[in-house]
Amino acid sequence: MTVPDIDVQDISDPDDPRLDDFRDLNSVDRRPDLPSGKGLVIAEGVLVVQRMLASRFTPRAMLGTDRRLAELRDDLAGSPSPYYRASAEVMAQAVGFHLNRGVLASASRLPEPSVSEVVDGARTVVVLEGVNDHENLGSIFRNAAGLGVDAVVFGSGCADPLYRRAVRVSMGHALLVPYARAADWPADLLMLQQRGFRLLAMTPRGDARRLGEAMDAVRDQPIALLVGAEGPGLTAAALRISDLRVRIPMSRGTDSLNVATAAALAFYERARLGP
Amino acid sequence: MTVPDIDVQDISDPDDPRLDDFRDLNSVDRRPDLPSGKGLVIAEGVLVVQRMLASRFTPRAMLGTDRRLAELRDDLAGSPSPYYRASAEVMAQAVGFHLNRGVLASASRLPEPSVSEVVDGARTVVVLEGVNDHENLGSIFRNAAGLGVDAVVFGSGCADPLYRRAVRVSMGHALLVPYARAADWPADLLMLQQRGFRLLAMTPRGDARRLGEAMDAVRDQPIALLVGAEGPGLTAAALRISDLRVRIPMSRGTDSLNVATAAALAFYERARLGP
Repeated sequence: MTVPDIDVQDISDPDDPRLDDFRDLNSVDRRPDLPSGKGLVIAEGVLVVQRMLASRFTPRAMLGTDRRLAELRDDLAGSPSPYYRASAEVMAQAVGFHLNRGVLASASRLPEPSVSEVVDGARTVVVLEGVNDHENLGSIFRNAAGLGVDAVVFGSGCADPLYRRAVRVSMGHALLVPYARAADWPADLLMLQQRGFRLLAMTPRGDARRLGEAMDAVRDQPIALLVGAEGPGLTAAALRISDLRVRIPMSRGTDSLNVATAAALAFYERARLGP
Repeated sequence: MTVPDIDVQDISDPDDPRLDDFRDLNSVDRRPDLPSGKGLVIAEGVLVVQRMLASRFTPRAMLGTDRRLAELRDDLAGSPSPYYRASAEVMAQAVGFHLNRGVLASASRLPEPSVSEVVDGARTVVVLEGVNDHENLGSIFRNAAGLGVDAVVFGSGCADPLYRRAVRVSMGHALLVPYARAADWPADLLMLQQRGFRLLAMTPRGDARRLGEAMDAVRDQPIALLVGAEGPGLTAAALRISDLRVRIPMSRGTDSLNVATAAALAFYERARLGP
């Protein structure tokens, strides 16, 4: 396939240095301190690459098969980024494993906005504390995107939303939903209160208010929904600062839901009662 | 630790034949046709073993560390099943990988009830079609347990709910929530209708009714909620038979939620409007 307006470069040698952004992806990916090192943002698959192209992250390069190039050609028209076209075998050798999604894009990290910036004008914000599982984090971004959450704020102990697996599970929404990291935790919660946000803390405690009642009580106000990790939940400090404690009514006794599912229920209830 | 009333057997040889239920777990686990072969139901971790003990599945045997035995001793008092006590190293050699949950239980499969049996007296049933991912299936059982769903019915193309990963992700609820497989698909949907269930089909289609409205319309009737796989969704035949098509109102355009998350929202809305 010849593709006008796209910088397609054919590559047949897996050691070609142009593929360095994608080399040994699993080992690069496991480096925890990506922002300070070479660490890149990696999008996998047609849909996530499309979302990267629609995001503030401009691809440095793409690596993919001819078939994926055909699927992406409308999205790529006019893109300045090179598309390294290779066979699935060459890709697998460069990347270090077989990648059935068939296309990758790399991007550099960007400076992150402040909490003040991302919550400005927001109606619904989710604040995460100790959510250190990349799949749960990715799912929360996906749910936030689908269910009308304006921004994500990270308290202490959270995983990296730009880690490859988080981006993949988020279906690329980790690149699109605005997020910021609290500079001072949990003190930044007070700042949210001062800006008019009601703080709703999710907890399984029996003395918390039922989700529907709580969301009804704050339907006309901006809210920040605090969510802790499955298991430990929110810290005592975060619970203490919150204005309302909220629980999801559960059947069959003491059970709990996955953290991303619990968050989705709260997002849904918030959107249902929305303007 | 000595434990009265529990048949504790110490094992130091990973080749001991008493461990055969747990040997090379990953390869046994990958056999797709478990019900007809030796295929066992395997519970992993203290919580899931506790749920197996509370379920209709009686453990044949358990394999675990001394620490997990201490955590389970109240649950195991009077149990006829042997607890094979071993070090983490012996366990890892027998099982084929390091198992940080520290305890396993095996059980034989049991005859499965019919659809008529599991839906008898039910208010809310979820019917799955083409849900062939074990994690999604497990999550649906977990959500069903927590959010008041009475039974699960499998249409065509679904994964095995007793597969080890499905049981683990379900937090053991795949062993507890009643389920049955449709003998005749999609004709069994007609049987559900004849028994008084309204059939609600989940779909992202714009002409479907909003979840809240649809659940409100059927709040006084038994329902069967039809859920298809992420991506393809329900088949045309299942959609045609359904009484109502239901969609989750989504923000940011054409996005969709994970199938287990979408199901959880429907379960929540059903429970919220419940008696």
